[in-house]
Amino acid sequence: MRRGTNLPWVGDYNQAVVLDGIRRSPGTSRTELARSTGLTLQTVSNIVRRLLERELVREDVRRSAAPRTAGKPRAALSVRPGTAVAAGVQFDRDHVVAVLLDLTGDVLDVARAERDGVGPAASVRVAASLVGTLVAAGVERGTVEPGAVRGVGVAVPGPLDFRGPVRSSAINLPGWRGVAVAELLQDHLHLPVLVENDATACAVGELWRSPPGPRSFLHVYVGAGIGGGIVLRDEVLRGESGNAGEIGHVVVDRTGPECTCGSRGCLEACAAPAAVVRSYVGLVGAPAAHRAGLALTESSVLPDHDLLDGLAAAGDAAATAVLRRADEDLADVLIGVVNVVDVGEVVLGGPGLRRGGPRVRAVVHRRLKAAMSHELHGVEVRLSDSGEHAGALGAAGGVLHEALSSSWSTARTPLRATVISPVAPVH
Amino acid sequence: MRRGTNLPWVGDYNQAVVLDGIRRSPGTSRTELARSTGLTLQTVSNIVRRLLERELVREDVRRSAAPRTAGKPRAALSVRPGTAVAAGVQFDRDHVVAVLLDLTGDVLDVARAERDGVGPAASVRVAASLVGTLVAAGVERGTVEPGAVRGVGVAVPGPLDFRGPVRSSAINLPGWRGVAVAELLQDHLHLPVLVENDATACAVGELWRSPPGPRSFLHVYVGAGIGGGIVLRDEVLRGESGNAGEIGHVVVDRTGPECTCGSRGCLEACAAPAAVVRSYVGLVGAPAAHRAGLALTESSVLPDHDLLDGLAAAGDAAATAVLRRADEDLADVLIGVVNVVDVGEVVLGGPGLRRGGPRVRAVVHRRLKAAMSHELHGVEVRLSDSGEHAGALGAAGGVLHEALSSSWSTARTPLRATVISPVAPVH
Repeated sequence: MRRGTNLPWVGDYNQAVVLDGIRRSPGTSRTELARSTGLTLQTVSNIVRRLLERELVREDVRRSAAPRTAGKPRAALSVRPGTAVAAGVQFDRDHVVAVLLDLTGDVLDVARAERDGVGPAASVRVAASLVGTLVAAGVERGTVEPGAVRGVGVAVPGPLDFRGPVRSSAINLPGWRGVAVAELLQDHLHLPVLVENDATACAVGELWRSPPGPRSFLHVYVGAGIGGGIVLRDEVLRGESGNAGEIGHVVVDRTGPECTCGSRGCLEACAAPAAVVRSYVGLVGAPAAHRAGLALTESSVLPDHDLLDGLAAAGDAAATAVLRRADEDLADVLIGVVNVVDVGEVVLGGPGLRRGGPRVRAVVHRRLKAAMSHELHGVEVRLSDSGEHAGALGAAGGVLHEALSSSWSTARTPLRATVISPVAPVH
Repeated sequence: MRRGTNLPWVGDYNQAVVLDGIRRSPGTSRTELARSTGLTLQTVSNIVRRLLERELVREDVRRSAAPRTAGKPRAALSVRPGTAVAAGVQFDRDHVVAVLLDLTGDVLDVARAERDGVGPAASVRVAASLVGTLVAAGVERGTVEPGAVRGVGVAVPGPLDFRGPVRSSAINLPGWRGVAVAELLQDHLHLPVLVENDATACAVGELWRSPPGPRSFLHVYVGAGIGGGIVLRDEVLRGESGNAGEIGHVVVDRTGPECTCGSRGCLEACAAPAAVVRSYVGLVGAPAAHRAGLALTESSVLPDHDLLDGLAAAGDAAATAVLRRADEDLADVLIGVVNVVDVGEVVLGGPGLRRGGPRVRAVVHRRLKAAMSHELHGVEVRLSDSGEHAGALGAAGGVLHEALSSSWSTARTPLRATVISPVAPVH
């Protein structure tokens, strides 16, 4: 049964819309907001008054470039820095990254630590310590107001089990299956924790840093595995179990290698960095791979993968072949996803693309141009510019997004939810 | 920029939610509606009063099974038959089907005509005549009130170009590219026309006939081609260009046969009925295929395809091989879609499955059980029970759905939109 909409919720929603509009268009005016949101000027003015009272927004009359009209100066609205901040943490196979994100969209600080193969409990301790250090430093520097931290977003490789306390089902992080990440981190930080699939978090981060939209895109994250996050008209597509966008286990070759998920020939098993390195070794043998400079240890997957890009550029036929195959596999899957979900933009990111990004982009671009969907809507392909902390940034963005969408009547209390809901509420 | 929500729109939305709740739970009460929709009893009562005044809903005190409480009898609410009706038309390669659908969900009448290879203009004339006959017969029989027809929904093979007057880009209906179907039909019928991709229409039809949800599923339609329609929590996923769910052009075999879309190895090129028949002929040769009973004409594709199912059951190795290959191709694609869109149900339908449905269902079920997503959420696979007029039914359902979602203050005037909007409004 669809749910109806009672008035208090509508008020929350409109407030979130207005605050988001101010955040994404700094210097905007009440009149512009009314035009862009479709709300009446009176509604916008009432909401802005509340946001000013709560010191989330400020107005700056002098900054206005418009001439005085009817004796009333145009007030430029922007969000106040430092009043609402979120921490974001991303766990990947090799490292932990933490960021502090301001409501204005600025990344205030970044910290990083190697994981060195430690298990989830120790990794969470490391993450908690990174976050604690970032917050303390921010308060000391005056960029963060005490009590402004709304919560911590955590990005972990998917899939995630949202049916109880959010648990990792990550098949790429040994020892993480069944770990209730949010609860562990909350024990250390005493802040609300939102857990998000890393690829979805990247998509949220991309959305968070977008100019006024609406935007629809698929964000591909190549890390230890290959994941995807989907945004449709500024809303994250979550799906029924909260794991939408899981492109890593789309079958690209039924007769291909076994996948850690139990299936065969999944994209991840064929085209993730570890699979590509494995294919190379399969072609040339381990001694030749060593001679070519590959370390072939468990923690050298990404550097080894980067090295293959250089070898291919230098004319190494085996490196060229394995990368081309992986690129085409990824392109096959992306054509399918673009057709099925019908988005006009693909964003490629993650540490697995830090060197080969432009090459992969070119292949995906060429293949998508030949695909059926192209006739009805062009598909842009671009590389993410969020860098290696994209997931942490997105997880923090998710916390602020959730906070914006919640009732700000309790603005100084923490988020209501301690875990992200698997499905976005039906509006 | 996200749009805000002004009050009149909220009223419309709530009214649609209540009317839909009554439609999907005949005999429900105001109290039950308040509980299921989350609206206050007062809001529900106000809306029900308006619906009663407009004669869209009736209440029946005698039918209630509940005892009298506080002296007030419980009123059982249901929609009034005949007051809001829509026609639905589906064009496929061989035939045109038209239905008349009541707001109660009953199919009042069905009519069908062979297309015999005529072009779009002649086909539209046939469709208009079918619809006219159905409406006249309904009025004469007294099942349709004069003026109750809200519009005509049209289901055509996708993709569709929604960028102007909706145009077919169907690559499976020769001569239909660029045809503005809605405008053609409107010239004949002088009723609002909504055009819908046939696979999406089937999904709408499935949703329309569902008990109170919310439901999330992928509806696969195997006709001349292979299409898909996606419903997430009772909302149709349309995507940016209005063509979401286009599973027929997901690549299953890069080295496979050329597809009419210009790509290679698309699902449709490998596993649609025509492709399967072609593969069989490729294996055994045309003379042997003729001897086995295949007619091998342009209009015999579906009967020939049905015949292969019988041949396989009787032990024909070539028929078994080509069907198995096609089933596995479809399963590959469905695993991908279930992973990426994250739905817990797959519904299989369309004339291409009228004989082989149970076989295909078994293969898809087995493959999905082994796929990654299964650990996080089971995936049910079932055959549609809408029959061959599923698309027409869904197209008509779409018209009524649109009518429910529009302002009923103009309840006796036609729909505002003459063409379906490519993207659902942001709530």
